Amino acid sequence: MSSQIDTIFNPTSIAIVGATNRPQSVGQAVVRNLIQGEFQGVLYPVHPTLKSVFGIKAYKRLGDIPDPVDLVVIIIKPEMVPAVLRDAAQKGISSAVVITAGFKEVGGKGAILEKKIQELAGHHRIRLVGPNCLGVINTAAEVRMNASFARKMPRPGNIAFISQSGALCTSVLDYAEGRKIGFSKFISFGNKADVNEIDLLRYLGEDPATKVICMYLEDLSAGQEFIRVASDISWNKGKPILAVKSGTSSEGARAAASHTGSLVGTDSAYDAIFLQSGIQRVEGVNELFHYAMAFSRQLLPRGRRIAIVTNAGGPGIMATDAAVRHGLQLATFSPETEARLKESLPPTANIRNPVDVIGDATHERYEVALKTALQDDNVDGAIVLLTPQAMTDILETARIVPSVAKDMNKPILCSFMGIVDVSEGVAHLESNGIPNYVFPEAASRAMAAMARFGERLAIGNRVLPELTCNRDHANDLIRAKLDGNLKCYLPEREAADLLDSYGLPLLASRLVTGPDAIDAAAEGIRFPVAMKIVSRDIVHKVDAGGVRLNIADAVQAREAFAQIVENGRRFNPDARIDGVLMQEMAGKGVEVILGCARDAKFGPIVMFGLGGTLVEAIKDVTFRLAPMRIASAENMIRSIKTFNVLQGIRGNPPSDLEAIKDCILRVSTLVANHPEISELDINPLIVYPEGKGAVVADCRIMLRSTSA
Amino acid sequence: MSSQIDTIFNPTSIAIVGATNRPQSVGQAVVRNLIQGEFQGVLYPVHPTLKSVFGIKAYKRLGDIPDPVDLVVIIIKPEMVPAVLRDAAQKGISSAVVITAGFKEVGGKGAILEKKIQELAGHHRIRLVGPNCLGVINTAAEVRMNASFARKMPRPGNIAFISQSGALCTSVLDYAEGRKIGFSKFISFGNKADVNEIDLLRYLGEDPATKVICMYLEDLSAGQEFIRVASDISWNKGKPILAVKSGTSSEGARAAASHTGSLVGTDSAYDAIFLQSGIQRVEGVNELFHYAMAFSRQLLPRGRRIAIVTNAGGPGIMATDAAVRHGLQLATFSPETEARLKESLPPTANIRNPVDVIGDATHERYEVALKTALQDDNVDGAIVLLTPQAMTDILETARIVPSVAKDMNKPILCSFMGIVDVSEGVAHLESNGIPNYVFPEAASRAMAAMARFGERLAIGNRVLPELTCNRDHANDLIRAKLDGNLKCYLPEREAADLLDSYGLPLLASRLVTGPDAIDAAAEGIRFPVAMKIVSRDIVHKVDAGGVRLNIADAVQAREAFAQIVENGRRFNPDARIDGVLMQEMAGKGVEVILGCARDAKFGPIVMFGLGGTLVEAIKDVTFRLAPMRIASAENMIRSIKTFNVLQGIRGNPPSDLEAIKDCILRVSTLVANHPEISELDINPLIVYPEGKGAVVADCRIMLRSTSA
Repeated sequence: MSSQIDTIFNPTSIAIVGATNRPQSVGQAVVRNLIQGEFQGVLYPVHPTLKSVFGIKAYKRLGDIPDPVDLVVIIIKPEMVPAVLRDAAQKGISSAVVITAGFKEVGGKGAILEKKIQELAGHHRIRLVGPNCLGVINTAAEVRMNASFARKMPRPGNIAFISQSGALCTSVLDYAEGRKIGFSKFISFGNKADVNEIDLLRYLGEDPATKVICMYLEDLSAGQEFIRVASDISWNKGKPILAVKSGTSSEGARAAASHTGSLVGTDSAYDAIFLQSGIQRVEGVNELFHYAMAFSRQLLPRGRRIAIVTNAGGPGIMATDAAVRHGLQLATFSPETEARLKESLPPTANIRNPVDVIGDATHERYEVALKTALQDDNVDGAIVLLTPQAMTDILETARIVPSVAKDMNKPILCSFMGIVDVSEGVAHLESNGIPNYVFPEAASRAMAAMARFGERLAIGNRVLPELTCNRDHANDLIRAKLDGNLKCYLPEREAADLLDSYGLPLLASRLVTGPDAIDAAAEGIRFPVAMKIVSRDIVHKVDAGGVRLNIADAVQAREAFAQIVENGRRFNPDARIDGVLMQEMAGKGVEVILGCARDAKFGPIVMFGLGGTLVEAIKDVTFRLAPMRIASAENMIRSIKTFNVLQGIRGNPPSDLEAIKDCILRVSTLVANHPEISELDINPLIVYPEGKGAVVADCRIMLRSTSA
Repeated sequence: MSSQIDTIFNPTSIAIVGATNRPQSVGQAVVRNLIQGEFQGVLYPVHPTLKSVFGIKAYKRLGDIPDPVDLVVIIIKPEMVPAVLRDAAQKGISSAVVITAGFKEVGGKGAILEKKIQELAGHHRIRLVGPNCLGVINTAAEVRMNASFARKMPRPGNIAFISQSGALCTSVLDYAEGRKIGFSKFISFGNKADVNEIDLLRYLGEDPATKVICMYLEDLSAGQEFIRVASDISWNKGKPILAVKSGTSSEGARAAASHTGSLVGTDSAYDAIFLQSGIQRVEGVNELFHYAMAFSRQLLPRGRRIAIVTNAGGPGIMATDAAVRHGLQLATFSPETEARLKESLPPTANIRNPVDVIGDATHERYEVALKTALQDDNVDGAIVLLTPQAMTDILETARIVPSVAKDMNKPILCSFMGIVDVSEGVAHLESNGIPNYVFPEAASRAMAAMARFGERLAIGNRVLPELTCNRDHANDLIRAKLDGNLKCYLPEREAADLLDSYGLPLLASRLVTGPDAIDAAAEGIRFPVAMKIVSRDIVHKVDAGGVRLNIADAVQAREAFAQIVENGRRFNPDARIDGVLMQEMAGKGVEVILGCARDAKFGPIVMFGLGGTLVEAIKDVTFRLAPMRIASAENMIRSIKTFNVLQGIRGNPPSDLEAIKDCILRVSTLVANHPEISELDINPLIVYPEGKGAVVADCRIMLRSTSA
């Protein structure tokens, strides 16, 4: 199938159904673009009456073309598309780009029509991009295909851009022309009736011409498969993926009974998917290309320690502020570096980082400062700032940057600040592979994004956990409990039983049926304990006087047993009393919340965050799709804002992070294995100091039949 | 004094000391700029030997100039500046711009020299900008003064830019040329030996040519005076001030005993000052001018409800996302508006907000959509998005925007997305006062900044509170306690006494000297109470068995009294026991923290935030300089992230916000009146539901002598 997608981008012959000479029409624009873009293969316009289009001989039907055809581009009315696909199949064409609009996006008949072409493509094994798209572009010299109705052909480059919005493509192409950004592939994939973002990612991951993948998405077709494909590209191939996902503001909290259910929004699922895929999610197209320029042209820094070289103090501080804000560190130079800088720079220069070569700096001064800083082992990358002062030789300074860069294996980003006076210098930088940003903050932010990606590449543990669990027991329990019902809550003991079958740490408990059994029960349990009546006829135990807390020893326990049973009998003389549950009381620790909700599209989503009364106030929680890899559980713990609480603030010892990780992975496995678990809240999970484990203090589980 | 500053910007004659013909020199650049900028007054170059500079007759000394001189611009060596200032004084010149560098910024001799010129300026009543600056520019047609060594003269406009960094000015000028941004005044104020940002603000606040003030700051000279001047401009004159303050990352937590002291960083003071001044603090120069373009060219929206008109769905969602993220709302159209849109737009268009006029939209369709949306009373402003699609008539669409705008009293921002194809349209928009942004996010963010400013303008209560307090009693207490010491902690009872003298709500307490006094004491107090031994010889009351909590009634109190006194005697037989303090126990409520620390430069800073164990973990606190206005206290409460806790989450009632405000204002007044209060923590202040007040449950106060 991948070879078919390859044919979409590397055809040697293209039929254009709907080609025409009519000015201002899409059918004309596509042929014109293919010709002007210098397509390296053969074009076959298809039109019912025209003899030729732009002088190229036209054919009435696909079947009339005497040669084999790799790709068909379709621009005719939506109602006619199915027939063309059938013709294509007959002609043996395996790839199609349907530019025509008027399908799913208009609803009604359009949606039915889209379903039809989807089925036809599947049936005839045609891989199809679109419908309702701008088209596809491949800038490779041996192909040069602009099969789109865009206003222009982008310059070649190593960035691939794929977009769910065709209109956005027109703006991105115009922006890229202005910023001299080039593309390997440029793909508008429209309604994705067949080829979707996952197919494209898989293809671009293998594409040697593509170094960075940029995406504009409005939704995703699948969660776990996307994660599998994208994370392989990010981490195994080391190819960065950057994404804008719009529609964050449309998310709404759902009506849900659990904390997790009420906190998870649609956007949480997307955030989780991007995190688990190693994708850098950015806020807008501007940031997207700021990052793409850096990733596509520079090496990744080996760490977060950067040097800044500037000819002005103020901008140096601004770059530092932004660097620190985005997680970079200002490198501390070695004494040798400082000595060398001192020797080479005038006495008024600042030889500490940020290095200020002073307003009258020439390019020589920049050269020695940049080279010396980058040679320092404490420096992972550099940002060069230039303000166009009276004495500044802008172009000469621009020339030294790539010349210094070529001997170093470290990234350099520039901010030659301004637009007009700096333009010649900026052009030199950019044509020599050094990204430039109008102001320093953007350079710092892009460097930080590269450092983060580099760090994530180094993280191991990207495997699913191997846990022992009693899946059959859990299945039996769930089936017995649901028993034909659409949904039900698991009572406390069954919920505990279910968690126990996946090895989650529970409070020890013993059912005692008489006062004489207390001594034996007490041996497997630690005091203090809570004691609770067990009776299917008494639901509200507290109201019935059926609960006693903080029982300190066996003597008190015997007294409590008698009292509880008596209270129960008085409350409901007919109640069948199975006994009294003795349960360990949870010791003090840090309270966290661990839960799961289910997204209609993406399945189970696990939530982790700090628990306690403030959980709803600050909503400091993080989400991942289940099942998750070990590294994801580790990242969840570290990514909450209150992680410092788990590290131990105010003299408290650090919490048992291993225990939390184990619990997250067990919950993840549990909810992934059992789709009937619709919502789950462990709130709180009480976490003890390092090495002392954690324990489920309370949990709620709701089951929902999957056969409904 | 203000008239002297006016002379700096509106001189009719300028002497340039250090004027020269030497190429590449600053002295030549300044004269060239004054000539090329078409200065409307008379220039007098001053040089020891030259007969003329650029053909203008030169004088040996200031005293030789035969006519009166308004302003002297100084570019000679630093050592010679004092003599020139003396000459200037003798000549009766009252205004100076010292461009020369080599003063405070180089330390040592330079700093001494700066002190000297500062004294000279003060002594001779010369108002002086600089030293170490790029110079000053006034673009007004009747002045046209470029008294700087910048590479260029900016175009006229209604934005004033003042900068502590001269080098940044060169970049901003270059950027502004590229973006066609004009300025009223452009001022590099350097080391501010005399004229500082407050003087400039005061002047620009009155300047009719200036509609928006932009600042780049590295530090502020004073806190309360800055707030007074800037907030008058922001709120009384309604003139927006935007500021970049660099150096945020250099802040470090201080070594401090109190929570407040450890949480306040230098940057907190700057944040507080900007908030109290109504200044919009922005992260970088890019954002600064994005906002300045909007503020300087468009009206403020009357509310947060915006309409978006777009020819592409994706960008519409992106603009919506950004709008919501920055606090705007998508307006809901009236039924009439929807009906009119439905009538005028094709059936595939989306007539709900964001209005999608569809990819093939002409300018007519944009016109009807924009006009209809803006006529709706539910719409406070509009953002127009355009992607350059095949059929889009970009320039025609650009033309309709200002023509629709002129009949509406509502702001319009555009994002004609791209660079090259849209350039002609963008140029038309910008030359007609409609700001354009390359991508929609920036437009949404700028609109949100305008809406926020508009809302703040409407806030009242911008007055200092009038509180009754016993200032003399507090003074006596502080003096007695310090008693010649450098610093000391106030013991609990004195701390309570001090707070009480400013009317802060304390737990009622009674000192009882014998069991017989308990009944009488119990009348003014609510049980349960705590009972604590009072003895100057027993410091650690708990260790001595001198504290009992949760005493439920008078009977228990009598028993506790006897026990406590006995414990005390046993602990220290020689202890002088004054009695036992009966103190109300605080009921349950929301715990907040209210404190004060003192900044060496800006004086007392009040902190407010949610209390409890998480305060250090999430650092959700906010700061204001004391004394503060009533509105500031209100804003403090509303600005914490956990404000929802005070509004009542999880079924809890809303807290008594009036009581919190009252406490903040009392603390603010207390610490402003008594500079000896070096640190203060009320932690927690327990806040009860609306109308039930609040109470200080614990407090620490440290005094420090101010005479040291």
